[in-house]
Amino acid sequence: MIIVLKSGTTARDEKAVLTEIRRLGYKPHVMRGVERIVIGAIGDERKNPSLDTLRAWPQVESVTPIQKRHKLVSREANPASSTVLVGDVEIGGKEIVVMAGPCSVESETQLLTTAESVAKAGARILRGGAYKPRTSPYEFQGLGEKGLKLLSKARKRTGLKIVTELLSEEHVDLVAEHADILQIGARNAQNFQLLIAAARTGKAILLKRGLSMKIDEWLLAGEYILANGNRNVLFCERGIRTFETYTRNTLDLGAIPIIKNESHLPVVIDPSQGGGRADLVAAFCRGAVAMGVDSLIIEVHPNPKEAWSDGAQQLDLEGFAGLMKDLRPLAQAVGRTLHG
Amino acid sequence: MIIVLKSGTTARDEKAVLTEIRRLGYKPHVMRGVERIVIGAIGDERKNPSLDTLRAWPQVESVTPIQKRHKLVSREANPASSTVLVGDVEIGGKEIVVMAGPCSVESETQLLTTAESVAKAGARILRGGAYKPRTSPYEFQGLGEKGLKLLSKARKRTGLKIVTELLSEEHVDLVAEHADILQIGARNAQNFQLLIAAARTGKAILLKRGLSMKIDEWLLAGEYILANGNRNVLFCERGIRTFETYTRNTLDLGAIPIIKNESHLPVVIDPSQGGGRADLVAAFCRGAVAMGVDSLIIEVHPNPKEAWSDGAQQLDLEGFAGLMKDLRPLAQAVGRTLHG
Amino acid sequence: MIIVLKSGTTARDEKAVLTEIRRLGYKPHVMRGVERIVIGAIGDERKNPSLDTLRAWPQVESVTPIQKRHKLVSREANPASSTVLVGDVEIGGKEIVVMAGPCSVESETQLLTTAESVAKAGARILRGGAYKPRTSPYEFQGLGEKGLKLLSKARKRTGLKIVTELLSEEHVDLVAEHADILQIGARNAQNFQLLIAAARTGKAILLKRGLSMKIDEWLLAGEYILANGNRNVLFCERGIRTFETYTRNTLDLGAIPIIKNESHLPVVIDPSQGGGRADLVAAFCRGAVAMGVDSLIIEVHPNPKEAWSDGAQQLDLEGFAGLMKDLRPLAQAVGRTLHG
Amino acid sequence: MIIVLKSGTTARDEKAVLTEIRRLGYKPHVMRGVERIVIGAIGDERKNPSLDTLRAWPQVESVTPIQKRHKLVSREANPASSTVLVGDVEIGGKEIVVMAGPCSVESETQLLTTAESVAKAGARILRGGAYKPRTSPYEFQGLGEKGLKLLSKARKRTGLKIVTELLSEEHVDLVAEHADILQIGARNAQNFQLLIAAARTGKAILLKRGLSMKIDEWLLAGEYILANGNRNVLFCERGIRTFETYTRNTLDLGAIPIIKNESHLPVVIDPSQGGGRADLVAAFCRGAVAMGVDSLIIEVHPNPKEAWSDGAQQLDLEGFAGLMKDLRPLAQAVGRTLHG
Repeated sequence: MIIVLKSGTTARDEKAVLTEIRRLGYKPHVMRGVERIVIGAIGDERKNPSLDTLRAWPQVESVTPIQKRHKLVSREANPASSTVLVGDVEIGGKEIVVMAGPCSVESETQLLTTAESVAKAGARILRGGAYKPRTSPYEFQGLGEKGLKLLSKARKRTGLKIVTELLSEEHVDLVAEHADILQIGARNAQNFQLLIAAARTGKAILLKRGLSMKIDEWLLAGEYILANGNRNVLFCERGIRTFETYTRNTLDLGAIPIIKNESHLPVVIDPSQGGGRADLVAAFCRGAVAMGVDSLIIEVHPNPKEAWSDGAQQLDLEGFAGLMKDLRPLAQAVGRTLHG
Repeated sequence: MIIVLKSGTTARDEKAVLTEIRRLGYKPHVMRGVERIVIGAIGDERKNPSLDTLRAWPQVESVTPIQKRHKLVSREANPASSTVLVGDVEIGGKEIVVMAGPCSVESETQLLTTAESVAKAGARILRGGAYKPRTSPYEFQGLGEKGLKLLSKARKRTGLKIVTELLSEEHVDLVAEHADILQIGARNAQNFQLLIAAARTGKAILLKRGLSMKIDEWLLAGEYILANGNRNVLFCERGIRTFETYTRNTLDLGAIPIIKNESHLPVVIDPSQGGGRADLVAAFCRGAVAMGVDSLIIEVHPNPKEAWSDGAQQLDLEGFAGLMKDLRPLAQAVGRTLHG
Repeated sequence: MIIVLKSGTTARDEKAVLTEIRRLGYKPHVMRGVERIVIGAIGDERKNPSLDTLRAWPQVESVTPIQKRHKLVSREANPASSTVLVGDVEIGGKEIVVMAGPCSVESETQLLTTAESVAKAGARILRGGAYKPRTSPYEFQGLGEKGLKLLSKARKRTGLKIVTELLSEEHVDLVAEHADILQIGARNAQNFQLLIAAARTGKAILLKRGLSMKIDEWLLAGEYILANGNRNVLFCERGIRTFETYTRNTLDLGAIPIIKNESHLPVVIDPSQGGGRADLVAAFCRGAVAMGVDSLIIEVHPNPKEAWSDGAQQLDLEGFAGLMKDLRPLAQAVGRTLHG
Repeated sequence: MIIVLKSGTTARDEKAVLTEIRRLGYKPHVMRGVERIVIGAIGDERKNPSLDTLRAWPQVESVTPIQKRHKLVSREANPASSTVLVGDVEIGGKEIVVMAGPCSVESETQLLTTAESVAKAGARILRGGAYKPRTSPYEFQGLGEKGLKLLSKARKRTGLKIVTELLSEEHVDLVAEHADILQIGARNAQNFQLLIAAARTGKAILLKRGLSMKIDEWLLAGEYILANGNRNVLFCERGIRTFETYTRNTLDLGAIPIIKNESHLPVVIDPSQGGGRADLVAAFCRGAVAMGVDSLIIEVHPNPKEAWSDGAQQLDLEGFAGLMKDLRPLAQAVGRTLHG
């Protein structure tokens, strides 16, 4: 930690800070600058108590940590890239794994039609919401367990793996029974109890970035999962909240190289939530592939015009098949592959 | 709903939209403008299926709702202001009710010392975190049940009511046993399952605004609570996330008159989280009182320099007593009172 | 400056950094931490070349300045509060100085009616835009010189001082001839050439905060004015841009205590731009007064319903007079006065 | 325009609104909904006075424009894509035109070395700042006219076209004498007087997006240029301001397909300013190329470690040459070319 004292701090006030730093287990190191005294506190910030309390001292101007707070997710501690295995599907390897399916599971026909079509086009994993977090209590909240069973049926029929959202600790066992990947949604990205409960299932976790989550906070949310014994984390960027109103969210494609720099774990892009507009999905996918994404999660519906939720951002079956075809040469140009 | 068609839409494509609007239970009303066709869809947007799906139609440029989506929390439906009763303490009346106490419950001495001191200074409700949502898994996570028991003890000793954070559905019964007001934190403001579980206890709910939550979304989160049979909601502004880095958050005091306009329910300000700096707390309280706040929730610690969490934003006991004294004439100037 | 080296930096790479630090005129001070080497560079950051270039070195993780970059505007360098004199009107003293008038100057009748009315209600300074920066080229751009002449006429008639916006270096002499205070609008807050030109007139400058300007950047924009020989700067908060869409901007009332902490110069609040809604103006004024504002700038129009710009945020003459009456007891409660 | 009346509006108040709508040149069209009255005002919103004033009426809940405010820049009015010719270099065609060069012009050697090297690597246009807008008045402000002359010399030597920033109306003639493209920086993106002055030179204008500029406002800033007789506008995304602190800005690559949807004019990406980090430049370029960008503007310096400004975001000469080589197969995969 670096502690900066306010200009004009007395020798007595300086000494009190040094005593406190020692009391908390660090070795202080004083530098006298032109206007201010700067103190380096040497010691392991993850083992000793935090020096954050010094912020409350009147003579202290600022306290800056030096060590990063995340460890298990960090590339510094794990230089080699990790892959996440979902059955026989490897995420983080040479193949860019595509997850596709409807925003919400609505019916057997809707789901199976979609599953068969996206499987044929090259998707490896089927997405579909059974429990839906909706801004208004009066909106469709998902089919619940019935939706989960339909997802299991679709897996059996097509061989696709299943990713679906977990939004309550109470549903953990049930969702884990049907899903191969548990999705933690943006609104629950710092619902730490849910992260811990999900981690304990041992299933792969697709961790969406919160609407206004800093990279550092996102990595620490992932750290909650690894610290609870589960290394199978996928970081999924799905658009952040900004001042812009043209799109529902602002997709931060820069998260791809940044997560790759900071972490050894795979990165996923959600181009559907990212902009909230079907007409932007293809461009976002192209950008993501070129920038090194490991996986894409794309909303696809047999008839977006009649979708029960978020119709405006879902591709139809043909649109998805066409997109997959378009992405192949691009993936190849950056040394990656797409299934199918 | 207002549906705008893209310029150059054919008669056939227009007709298809009209047919769909009727199919969903609305009566379409066509206006031909200079460049575009605008369709008003007449019908109850809360009873009929949403027309949002029209956004997925290629000939549709935009779909704009006219009705507000919140109803039970809205002042339009409930013109008279509501108060929330917590035992004999009324929030939303002439008295500005002050909640005060430490960020985290740390020990019996720390809590009882604080409780007695803030009670004497005029606080009516004791705050204190037993379960703490922390950005990093390596930070202090709260004393849990032990903390709750200390809160109950403090209530017995001082007569103060208790507000404490609920952060897991699994803790609902336990927390409700000890608390008079359940706090839903900013990171869980759209954890709808938790909102529903909290609502069902019948306890008053202090609903913090999420870090990047629009007013409309905040009202709808409150609507989840009322729609689940609990009218005792307190809307608590605690700072939103912006680009500014001088303070941890940007306290949006404008939320006071806005919530008062839009809802009949009381408004609370958290000046401690609001800026994350003890030196701004007094100014934020003064502003809030002048702008019509119903309650303040203030972090107070016997020794902020040694607090286990967020020391930099907590007042000490004397600081709090002085603040209460300073606020009295201001409350009086705007026709309100402070206890004590 | 504090320079943190990446973990695993070699002795040779460390030495190269130390050499560079010395070359740029600083004395390096090395601290060896648990995982990283931290180097304090001792020297005057405002006199020596910046060490920012070290950010480009591959072995450097971060470079953090210790000294604040602003000096002439800072309270650290000037502990006593400054006032700005505009003729016989002192801003920053016990009186809270009210500036009022229409968004745009539209006609002699409109302006003089407003001026006489606001003067009677207690305003000391007349505002009115002659040059208007409009988002679209097809919107009303202001009366220009004709508007300036009407402002001069209104001053002569009422004795009110004049504040009006300067938006081009080409207009500096003309605007300075008619205005007592030059307003720099939010969109020009980092138009440094305009700041310098304005500074050189010697007139008081009302410097609005940019739409997404950090406090630090705002202070540095003010520093441009002082560094060009003009100490008469008023920092005016007028709402920042956030994700919220209920209001046009989010008024950051926290800027009042923050600017008071960091600078010796007066703070002004613009409650009209702040929310873009007339129905929020009174609450914002009450908050600002309670939080220690030195001046308010309020949009007032004889008939807001027919205003040529921004009608929705302007008070009518009676509304303004009523507001002034309401603010008086509040000002008194915080030890301040209002004229009239 | 769509005008929504508040619920409970009286017949008399409704009639007053209808009268006003007619007075302003529109034909009102009333729809009676379940809870509210909605009025469509038929007429050309760009020819008639704005109905925005209705926002100031107490019975009016909202006023929503239907027509887009931009016209000359819009694709709706100009379905075919436009190209901008800079001498013999065409921007917006099949070739992705690369602009490269130092952040600031520092010396003849620095500039000519860079120019020759980037030309060889495939750049067509040389960038370099002669006038620099700097946050602090104490930072290097650029070489001014001397810098412009060096740019002219570099053009003569290499045949590269020149793009450089214009930041004052007073410099228009001088900068236009030396530059082929005038850059309007992010901080001046709504400095409308500067836009008009730049437009009148007839030179191509590279219009950077402001730090917190909505797409709609950016298009309207471009509209200022076209409305002043100059169609040679390049929209350049360079990162927007968000809550994220890992990067200096958040590069919004979504701006590429959005500007392509909304406008007929070319789109440029600035990957250097975009993230403020050299290590992200390559990934941003790859994403931009894949998403359909027309031009890239990249900061390159012979020795970024000693750059006078923004060293951390500049590539060195080899780094740039390597990047160009890497981008070629990607450009080819999306049907585009790179020079050289």
